[in-house]
Formats: sequence, C-alpha cells, structure tokens
Amino acid sequence: MDLYFLPMACSLATRIALNEIGEDAHFVEVDAATKQLVASGADYRDIHPLGLVPVLRTDDGALISENLAVLRHVGQRGDLWPAEQETGLLQWLSFTATELHAGLFAPQFDATASAEVKAHARRRAKPRLDHLQRHLEGRAFLLDGFTVADAFLVTVLNFSRGCAFDLSPWPDVLRYYQRLAKRPSVAAAMAVELPLYVAEQARRPKEGAA
Amino acid sequence: MDLYFLPMACSLATRIALNEIGEDAHFVEVDAATKQLVASGADYRDIHPLGLVPVLRTDDGALISENLAVLRHVGQRGDLWPAEQETGLLQWLSFTATELHAGLFAPQFDATASAEVKAHARRRAKPRLDHLQRHLEGRAFLLDGFTVADAFLVTVLNFSRGCAFDLSPWPDVLRYYQRLAKRPSVAAAMAVELPLYVAEQARRPKEGAA
Repeated sequence: MDLYFLPMACSLATRIALNEIGEDAHFVEVDAATKQLVASGADYRDIHPLGLVPVLRTDDGALISENLAVLRHVGQRGDLWPAEQETGLLQWLSFTATELHAGLFAPQFDATASAEVKAHARRRAKPRLDHLQRHLEGRAFLLDGFTVADAFLVTVLNFSRGCAFDLSPWPDVLRYYQRLAKRPSVAAAMAVELPLYVAEQARRPKEGAA
Repeated sequence: MDLYFLPMACSLATRIALNEIGEDAHFVEVDAATKQLVASGADYRDIHPLGLVPVLRTDDGALISENLAVLRHVGQRGDLWPAEQETGLLQWLSFTATELHAGLFAPQFDATASAEVKAHARRRAKPRLDHLQRHLEGRAFLLDGFTVADAFLVTVLNFSRGCAFDLSPWPDVLRYYQRLAKRPSVAAAMAVELPLYVAEQARRPKEGAA
C-alpha cells in the first residue's frame, strides 16, 4: 500500500489506523503549497486532480480517495471497522467530515478564505460541538471501542491547535482529545508527522502565498 | 420506517431511493424555519439536536442520522448499495457531502452567511465541479448502474436551481443532472416535495428571519 499524505492533515487518521492494527505502508509525502511529491517532485495532481489527501494505492494498484473510503479499507484489514457498528461508523465519520472538518476547520487553513469566512465557520461550530459534547459525556470512544471514527475525530480535533480554536467550552470533547492524543497509535503518528509539518512550513515563502 | 425530511433538502435523496426500490415510508415533514414538525408542532430538535435532516427511524425504533448512513440503510433494502462497489459508493457520497453540499451549496442557503461567505464557496467550487465533469464524461451514473450515490448527487445538484448557480460551464454535469431529474423515481420525489417547499416558503415571515 502507498499512502499519499500531507503532514498533520486529515491523512493522519489513516496513519493512526495503520499503527493501531500494526500494519505498515509506503508513505508518500505531498507538499501542501506546491502539490508536488516531496521526494520526487512529481505532480500529485496526476494522482488526485484536486490535490486532496489521503489517497491510498492498494496492493493491486487501485486508487482510493476520500477519508471515509480509505479508512474503511484500512479499518477492515484490522478490527477498526466492526460490521455490527457500521451505521454508527458512517454517522460519526460523516458528521466529522462535514460538520467539523469541512464546516469548521478547513476554512481556517484555507489561504483564500477571508477573516469573515473563517469567523462565520467558527460561529456555526458551537451547536456542532455542543452535540459532540453531549455524545462524548461519559464515553471513552465515539462507539464501542476504538474505531477509525476515533482515528478521524482525534485528527480533526487536533486541527484546533493549528488555528487557535479553544475546545475548553466543551470539556468532554477536550478531555477526549487529550486522552486520545496520548494513545500510543496516535502519539506515534504525530511524532512522525510533526517534524515533517515543521519542515514544510519552513519551506514556504515567508509571504505565505498559497 | 419514519423519514424526517425538509422539502427539497438533502433528505430528498432518501425519498428517491425509496421510490427506486418500490418501498414506502412514513414521511414526517420538518419546518425549516421553526424546526417544528409541521403536522404536530412538536420540536424536531428532540429527534435531532441540530435540526438536521434526514433522520430515519427504523422499524425497530433506532434513529439513524447523516445522509450516508441513512442512504446505506435504505440502499441495502434494495439493490442501490452494491457491496462490490462499496469503495466507490463511499468515495462519491463523501465527495458530494463534503465538497459539493457542505462546501458549495449549504452556505448559499445559510441565512447567517454573508455575501462574501457565499461568494467564497462559489469560487472554491470550480475545481470540484471540474473533477466531477471529468468523471461524468461518457458515463450515465457515478458508478455502474444507478445507486444511492446518484440519488444524493442529483439532489445536491438540484440545489443549483434554488440559488441560481449556473451548471452550464460543466456540460456533462448539467446533462447528468437534467437526465437524472427526469428519471421516474426522481421526478416523482420532486413532484411530491416541490409543492411542500412552496408552501413552506409561503409560511415564512416576509423579512426572512432565520
């Protein structure tokens, strides 16, 4: 398997899932600014026209895009996609993808988004995080036991650090994030990707043109 | 089954899927402005705290939220969720949910979104629709045969009419939308919901609060 990834982006969820099930992959880093593969300089848009990550190339050569589909593929190789919880998996993966990732955090990291666009996304987030807070009260995971939905949610909640979004008004969300961030599969994934993220930021022009 | 829906909203995809497999459900209309059930006046937020549709109450009483999860449940009752195409189903359902629905159309119908927020979403849409255009060139459906991914995509593309978003720069996307809109399951679903949508708009205060 080849996993195309951006350091500390939503592709981190797949690395967490691979760590969790004890599998390895060939990780291929994409540069966020240039959309070139860091090692070869090849154009990543030949793999994914929109330059989005993750993309997984399976052992038989198929390309899978979209986090939900990639996480299902990896999760089913281990026990992170329990068939009897598939409805809950789709519910929480979809909620995280649409309401938290696309709705709240993606605009914060979008270089073309104005301050007003970012602020609008933050205002909309409150009822979404209230909903998540109510679900996580008294729960260790989104569902019964750790699944790819947790790998995805901890990845997306981690974006709060990069855009100074304060999770403390949602104490059970914050507690969940902090506990999951210490889980070995998660901590190990972040320990690999954080230095790559720092290096990527250092490569960027100081003006910050995207 | 009870299906909680807003007329002409993304819950239309589930009605299309039910039509397609020849199943019926008890449709419970939610008022977009008040979030009350139209028939009883009960507060829909007791069913879904965010007031989002669709929610499906299954015959055994379970509540399923999020379009992906609802469409899987209904699709599997017929042949609209082919197991051998599950990766493609998740890819296109997720792309439609995040890039087209959340990323482009939801802000156009968000009463709290400024003109700048709406315009930003429209600008971001071009590469997404370019990508969809390339995929649909020479194809009748997103995958092999009609699936719930098509039920969802035609529903989301139909939002273009309500917000004057011109699809003609993407001729294969427009052709797909126009052809699918005439498909009996789709046309019948729209014929039921369009008058309800018109009635809902007429109930709203003229000022357009909320």
